[in-house]
Amino acid sequence: MSHEANRVENNSSSPCNVARETTIVEIHTVCLPPEKTAFQKLKRRVADVFFPDDPLQRFRNQTWRNRVVLGLKSIFPIFTWAPQYNLKLFRSDVISGLTIASLAIPQGISYAKLANLPPIIGLYSSFVPPLIYSILGSSKHLGVGPVSIASLVMGSMLSESISPTQDSTLYLKLAFTATFFAGVFQASLGLLRLGFVIDFLSKATLIGFTAGAAVIVALQQLKSLLGIVHFTSQMQIVPVVSSVLNHRSEWSWQPIVMGLVFLIILLTTRHISMKKPKLFWISAAAPLTSVVISTVFVYLIRSKTQSISFIGYLPKGLNPPSLNMLFFSGTHLALAIKTGLITGILSLTEGIAVGRTFASLKNYQVNGNKEMMAIGFMNMAGSCTSCYVTTGSFSRSAVNYNAGAQTAVSNIVMSSTVLVTLLFLMPLFYYTPNVILAAIIVTAVIGLIDYEAAYKLWKVDKLDFLACICSFFGVLFISVPLGLAVAVGVSVLKILLHVIRPNTVELGNISGTLIYQSLERYTEASRIPSFLILAIESPIYFANSSYLQDRILRWIREEESRIKENNESSLKCIVLDMTAVTAIDTSGIETVSELRKKLEKQALQFVLVNPVGSVMEKLHNSKIVESLGLGGIYLTVGEAVSDISSTWKAQYAQP
Amino acid sequence: MSHEANRVENNSSSPCNVARETTIVEIHTVCLPPEKTAFQKLKRRVADVFFPDDPLQRFRNQTWRNRVVLGLKSIFPIFTWAPQYNLKLFRSDVISGLTIASLAIPQGISYAKLANLPPIIGLYSSFVPPLIYSILGSSKHLGVGPVSIASLVMGSMLSESISPTQDSTLYLKLAFTATFFAGVFQASLGLLRLGFVIDFLSKATLIGFTAGAAVIVALQQLKSLLGIVHFTSQMQIVPVVSSVLNHRSEWSWQPIVMGLVFLIILLTTRHISMKKPKLFWISAAAPLTSVVISTVFVYLIRSKTQSISFIGYLPKGLNPPSLNMLFFSGTHLALAIKTGLITGILSLTEGIAVGRTFASLKNYQVNGNKEMMAIGFMNMAGSCTSCYVTTGSFSRSAVNYNAGAQTAVSNIVMSSTVLVTLLFLMPLFYYTPNVILAAIIVTAVIGLIDYEAAYKLWKVDKLDFLACICSFFGVLFISVPLGLAVAVGVSVLKILLHVIRPNTVELGNISGTLIYQSLERYTEASRIPSFLILAIESPIYFANSSYLQDRILRWIREEESRIKENNESSLKCIVLDMTAVTAIDTSGIETVSELRKKLEKQALQFVLVNPVGSVMEKLHNSKIVESLGLGGIYLTVGEAVSDISSTWKAQYAQP
Repeated sequence: MSHEANRVENNSSSPCNVARETTIVEIHTVCLPPEKTAFQKLKRRVADVFFPDDPLQRFRNQTWRNRVVLGLKSIFPIFTWAPQYNLKLFRSDVISGLTIASLAIPQGISYAKLANLPPIIGLYSSFVPPLIYSILGSSKHLGVGPVSIASLVMGSMLSESISPTQDSTLYLKLAFTATFFAGVFQASLGLLRLGFVIDFLSKATLIGFTAGAAVIVALQQLKSLLGIVHFTSQMQIVPVVSSVLNHRSEWSWQPIVMGLVFLIILLTTRHISMKKPKLFWISAAAPLTSVVISTVFVYLIRSKTQSISFIGYLPKGLNPPSLNMLFFSGTHLALAIKTGLITGILSLTEGIAVGRTFASLKNYQVNGNKEMMAIGFMNMAGSCTSCYVTTGSFSRSAVNYNAGAQTAVSNIVMSSTVLVTLLFLMPLFYYTPNVILAAIIVTAVIGLIDYEAAYKLWKVDKLDFLACICSFFGVLFISVPLGLAVAVGVSVLKILLHVIRPNTVELGNISGTLIYQSLERYTEASRIPSFLILAIESPIYFANSSYLQDRILRWIREEESRIKENNESSLKCIVLDMTAVTAIDTSGIETVSELRKKLEKQALQFVLVNPVGSVMEKLHNSKIVESLGLGGIYLTVGEAVSDISSTWKAQYAQP
Repeated sequence: MSHEANRVENNSSSPCNVARETTIVEIHTVCLPPEKTAFQKLKRRVADVFFPDDPLQRFRNQTWRNRVVLGLKSIFPIFTWAPQYNLKLFRSDVISGLTIASLAIPQGISYAKLANLPPIIGLYSSFVPPLIYSILGSSKHLGVGPVSIASLVMGSMLSESISPTQDSTLYLKLAFTATFFAGVFQASLGLLRLGFVIDFLSKATLIGFTAGAAVIVALQQLKSLLGIVHFTSQMQIVPVVSSVLNHRSEWSWQPIVMGLVFLIILLTTRHISMKKPKLFWISAAAPLTSVVISTVFVYLIRSKTQSISFIGYLPKGLNPPSLNMLFFSGTHLALAIKTGLITGILSLTEGIAVGRTFASLKNYQVNGNKEMMAIGFMNMAGSCTSCYVTTGSFSRSAVNYNAGAQTAVSNIVMSSTVLVTLLFLMPLFYYTPNVILAAIIVTAVIGLIDYEAAYKLWKVDKLDFLACICSFFGVLFISVPLGLAVAVGVSVLKILLHVIRPNTVELGNISGTLIYQSLERYTEASRIPSFLILAIESPIYFANSSYLQDRILRWIREEESRIKENNESSLKCIVLDMTAVTAIDTSGIETVSELRKKLEKQALQFVLVNPVGSVMEKLHNSKIVESLGLGGIYLTVGEAVSDISSTWKAQYAQP
């Protein structure tokens, strides 16, 4: 069969069997997508929105027994890797587990203080949640525990209404209840497969938010670093700074000197580990070493000075149950739910992002929805066992990864170490000075200020930079939830702005080819006389339909005045390249039809090129295709131009 | 110069002077857009967002005197048409002006009742605002006056806080102040060129909103139609219906009979005029005729029955000044501002839409921003002269247009007629029964329920239909502002959903051409062995970047299993057609770069095709282009496929 015959046969067997013949080039007809019922479309849409990863794919063509095994493996990933677990893997996991434990203990105590909670809660939170994650989680490298951002946000949101010192029991109840709601929210996002909600905290937003939060947290640590006794519980920069400056009389030199020394040590070790990732253990071990040294030091000088405050008594023993402390009614419920939502979404974002980062380094997949459920259930269980919000922590996971963790067993090892600490070592922390915890926190949060990323945002995308700046200053000057809301608003506005004022581009032909490209961008491209070819770079929606109409009419006006100036042949045809018009709604359809009518009155031909499937379908359903005539829609700009030109030539040739 | 030589020369003089030579086809390099500074880009962006119509274009290349004249004409469009005004135009305008006046008088009284305002305010509002509009407005056919939707919304929003009967002065003050703020808001939208704000009330939303409001208003008229004395002031369907049913004892047959008779007459005349637009005057004259007949009838039977309530005393005389009634402090200010905003945006939307509709019928342009200023100033002036919110009314404009109006003079004629009425004819309305006003309102609002349009929405765009339904039920069951907010939310969500879960399409080649199209849609299209060609139909943003990555990886997985089943040659190259990717942000760029790394690990080549200007620029700024290599970006899919295939062939040919 010759090539030519093949092409014709293909054409005639196609569903859109209108083969148009012209003298010069073969013209292809624009097809409708295969017909589907409204239900089929809805099904496909729902599948696209909620099941983009096609989670049931593996269950197809399987026996029932296999399906049960697959189901179990899918709910408890531990069944996937446990059978292959061996001693060699265990050795790696023990080393990495002990390493993160040495980080987890001082971090747990410090972050609990950040949330205005008793230090012991931080240790409890490093015991139960990692165990649960190791059964449910699908990441191999995630180090689970309390994290700075969520701790800080919880502390700030709760302590604006309730004093953690005066109403300590109520405060604790609120913290557990908020943790419970965070867990419920996270697990339901996963169950309802609404993972895309966390995508709305764009990276740009998070960079600004984290930096803003880090600045405030670092400033708040001045309380311990300067030895101030009376300090604000507010979270904005103005009250914090004024609190620091107004209590200058309370500053004392002992904590200042001690804090500075350890701060310098910690920052130096961090710097060394960043320069040489192989020396990760230096920065991983530094916090615990500092705690030990400073505790011994304070113990030795305990009778000499009173100006260095220390942790004091910590109860020995395992996590007490806290189910009885959750409450589901009363005036503070709204606050608990709100705090739960915000800390939940923030910790989820961090957990998922960290999980994905290390998964991509080792080239395995982390399932977002499953991770959400794991983190959610972990927090729900945590809220019943005296833990507050936990998630995958970036610092812990990085250390875990560098220490050679192979599976979630490293979390179990860490948990066990914390268990030993809780059972036997708590009295050792009696003399641990608060100033060392402040130094650990400052070191941790300073690493969160990523000015290089912010500079890159500025260079690449100004609107992303704006979102970043908004969340930074929003958090600094207004409040955490409002700062986040403003940043999400800016991000959404960015999407909307792109739709409200879409780009339109005038196309020209690159001579000798069938390629049509932007005249402004490609100097090789040149105008086709009598044609104005426009590409619209956006869906046509209610939000831009009247703008687009005005803009296209202006293009025509400007083209006509250009033609007049240059004495070229007059404009006869407007070609609208719809390739990038990925969707249209009823307002958009109306605009196309109005535009056609207006141009008809000006004796201008109006044709569309290459509408995508859904657009073609809607144009068809709304009977616009009929009014344009099938001849008014072409597959490529090249075909449109040559077909229309040849029609004109034929008209001139006739008498 | 030969064609071939020309092409080569073009290439070498182009700004992207990397001409790539291959054995089979000429490969074109993808160019960057012409370089611009951040300031130039900002300037262009601002011009695009705020000045899409290039308003200063006409002022260029003009003498100063001409510029002043043009400026005056642009502020006061009356200067544009007044010099050409003649007796013939005047005759048409007088006829149409008198016709709309006959409609305006009963409508003014009825709509004022809808807003719970004294009937005389409706007449005042038909006098001053039309005069101001005729000087400032750019539409020739707009009939200006109070409209049902804005009246209804104002009535409902104000009377939920203030009783119009008990606190009548405060209510009046609130109405004028709200009108003032509506005007300020409208004028500032125009001045700040923020006209696109009203685009967010999409047509689908407005169809649902109008129908919902119409149902409630029609039900509320049952008060007068059934002769009920005690009636709810709430606006939701539940209290209104229960109010009707609970006061069955107050129903009386006289107003019911009278109301039904006139309702039938009015609906019949409306029906006739709709069938035969030439008989427009029948429905235009019907309200005034009904008012006259019913008033005479009630006058005649005034001593026989008490159960038909009538308007009563109306003060004679011109609009009294009401500047002293505006207030800018106090507890009710927030309510006035909120009411002003919502009635302002609703009446603006109606006014602009109506203006555009009739302008397009006569093929002239109405400038949106200028119209906003005209309507805004008209309302600000109105609020100082005892008028409430007015705008271009659809019913009035339709009658005006059909009666042959030629210029805004018809508004002046209407105004003068209302003036005469105010000065001399007010006592005639003493016995006008309320039931006739209710019948006029019902007839007007029933015409607003456009179920055919709703059905078309369902057929063409399910999500538009959802927005319509949401606003319908939102208004019916919740409240006007919340119903509107929900509908706008749905509309915005529609835009976001398109971005969150964009379409990806697998492309194939239409044999014998360089055209690549959707395999699902075009049966003529066929796969190229070893290639997977994907088109992404959306910008790549933070909101979809992780989804797109997952989806593309799933495409590859599915393609590989298909290849395995069919024993075809293995997958070697992924081509991403970026034509419809109209924007990218930093998250999107990161995704592209991650995707490249992942595919590299799977030994798959990854190339991009035809990124649009802004996307190419960002890829370049973020140094991704360098990592892909210039060879990783092609201008067309065809060039990518043939270039890569020929490289492979060359590799096989070598030892």
